[in-house]
Amino acid sequence: MNFTINREVLSQNLLQVSRALSNKIQMPGLTGILFNVTKKKIVLTASNNEISIQATINDKFNVIEEGEFLLQGKYLIEIVKKLSSTDVDIISFDENTVKILAGKSVFTLNCLQLESFPMISFNNSDINFTLDAINLKQIIKKTVFAISNNESRVVLTGVSLKAKDNVIEVTATDSYRLARKKIEFNYSFPEINIVIPGKSFDELSKILEENDEIIQIHCSSSKILFKFSNILFQSRLIEGVFPKIDSLIPSKYLNVLKFNKDELISVIDRVSIFVNNELSNIIKLSITDNGSVEFASISNELGAAKEDVTAIESTINSPMQIAFSSKYFSEALRSFDDNEVMVNFTGEIKPFTVTSEKDKNLIQLILPVRA
Amino acid sequence: MNFTINREVLSQNLLQVSRALSNKIQMPGLTGILFNVTKKKIVLTASNNEISIQATINDKFNVIEEGEFLLQGKYLIEIVKKLSSTDVDIISFDENTVKILAGKSVFTLNCLQLESFPMISFNNSDINFTLDAINLKQIIKKTVFAISNNESRVVLTGVSLKAKDNVIEVTATDSYRLARKKIEFNYSFPEINIVIPGKSFDELSKILEENDEIIQIHCSSSKILFKFSNILFQSRLIEGVFPKIDSLIPSKYLNVLKFNKDELISVIDRVSIFVNNELSNIIKLSITDNGSVEFASISNELGAAKEDVTAIESTINSPMQIAFSSKYFSEALRSFDDNEVMVNFTGEIKPFTVTSEKDKNLIQLILPVRA
Repeated sequence: MNFTINREVLSQNLLQVSRALSNKIQMPGLTGILFNVTKKKIVLTASNNEISIQATINDKFNVIEEGEFLLQGKYLIEIVKKLSSTDVDIISFDENTVKILAGKSVFTLNCLQLESFPMISFNNSDINFTLDAINLKQIIKKTVFAISNNESRVVLTGVSLKAKDNVIEVTATDSYRLARKKIEFNYSFPEINIVIPGKSFDELSKILEENDEIIQIHCSSSKILFKFSNILFQSRLIEGVFPKIDSLIPSKYLNVLKFNKDELISVIDRVSIFVNNELSNIIKLSITDNGSVEFASISNELGAAKEDVTAIESTINSPMQIAFSSKYFSEALRSFDDNEVMVNFTGEIKPFTVTSEKDKNLIQLILPVRA
Repeated sequence: MNFTINREVLSQNLLQVSRALSNKIQMPGLTGILFNVTKKKIVLTASNNEISIQATINDKFNVIEEGEFLLQGKYLIEIVKKLSSTDVDIISFDENTVKILAGKSVFTLNCLQLESFPMISFNNSDINFTLDAINLKQIIKKTVFAISNNESRVVLTGVSLKAKDNVIEVTATDSYRLARKKIEFNYSFPEINIVIPGKSFDELSKILEENDEIIQIHCSSSKILFKFSNILFQSRLIEGVFPKIDSLIPSKYLNVLKFNKDELISVIDRVSIFVNNELSNIIKLSITDNGSVEFASISNELGAAKEDVTAIESTINSPMQIAFSSKYFSEALRSFDDNEVMVNFTGEIKPFTVTSEKDKNLIQLILPVRA
């Protein structure tokens, strides 16, 4: 292997595939980036067994000798970032080492065993559709925070994606709250019902950051593949049946309050000062007959906080008190783009929802706790 | 206690004294800020037994009832920061609780026991002098990084400050390297020879950030007090004799190399990529007869790095190889304002120094290691 490549191009593509790098040193192959160098293209691949990413470089390089090498991702990226030259030469020195030359710098990088890298196939599938990056990022951002971090029920660490006719519906829940976003399109999808690991969706949305292309999506029974620009992003799917939760979502409400979203987020932020920790983040909401609304929290050790909020509009059929996680409520509020949100209650110990008049296709549901 | 105060003024002064807050919950008094409220002034004090800071507020408040309370620093600061009102009312509710009112927010904050706060006296001393903040910050910045973090030899966790005639000399060493800065003034100092905890100097430089005032300094046998604007900053001193190290500093050099500082820092940064960790950060410098200069490092596991550097000027009497900590070298280089530095060697296993032609009063000395 012997080639020269533009440093900036190499750096950008290394960063893209690095999102699939593992930091588990027990499996050294997964800490590496596979270089497949031919005269026509340079292909970089990384995989942590859950996510695999491949970047194909077609431009701004010159290959003198073709070859295949597995290089330690973390160090290679650091080297390329710290160099100041325009180009970088990468030359295999022997079977186990590669030399990186740039300006006056000479790096000798020990290679990883090619056999330690997993066999990965990025295959197209008969079940495929397209989605624009902007809608895909929206879907992820508005739901993925609600997944479970508890591996004991693996299916809840994923995000359910259903497609049928012209609608895509994405749901995440940790069984204490739920986030659901639907989007209607002007074209039809194949019927799909899969669960994508939340972490994969997170990494995908980071890699799509500035992207607004049309993305090709291929689904098989165990994998999902996203194709865009020069990138292939593949994730394994989670097996198992995502819980049916439609029956949890109330169809009628007792009390409905409309708030200014930013104001409400600030209030929740202040009121939860004493309970902003892992052990407890419970705040209490009191709604009185005359329409006054108060958020409050208590920590026996530190003190108490309370604050009245004026609703923009309210339909109050029954005064009530309800207690819930300030973290869940705040995350639900932040998922809305609109600055006016509706908080909808059916009773003191029943799930409540956050909705918006402008985006009828997003619903956040939170289960209360007994205070 | 019952008073109203401008939120911004309170917030600024809380942040100043907060640098002395302890986070040791075993000694709750040290996590508190003492409020001493009288009609004429509000005095805030915090202390972690090592550092004590007092801020006196003379303006933008209105006291209805005087009083003294000890409030949990961390939470009070967070509350005041998150409020959006112009003013804050702080009212003692009973002996153990204080109410904080702002806009529609009501916080009830449990107080700490007044008796749990240490007795602190900020006394003037017969031994006192003045120093401008700019020079004080320079002295700290150019030396304090070289202190020891190892508590087994406590005196090296401090910075030696000597004053005599019109010169102040500040020295820090962890016994593997040394930083010394002298400043000559056009006025005389009392004779002083003390050791200030490095952490105190660090916090002092942070609190002085934007400050360019004249600072009054009072020394007693066990404490040093810095007085500026509305702040008193006091630190305990470290007992024990700071090692005499003047004899370590070479008076003649074998090889002297002048470098561009920024270029050299970049080279060291690149060459130490594989050895940039706690276990090993050793790089090797080779100087040949013909004046070529090469930095190199090796990690058996990862690989090797090397880079030639061209000296701006050099006086080379003997080719040599020397190995040393890249971290120490890089920190020494960064302590110079001038962009040209001299690296001065006396031999392969002898201490070497970094100096600058523009600032003859700063010297950084590093002990080599056997490679």
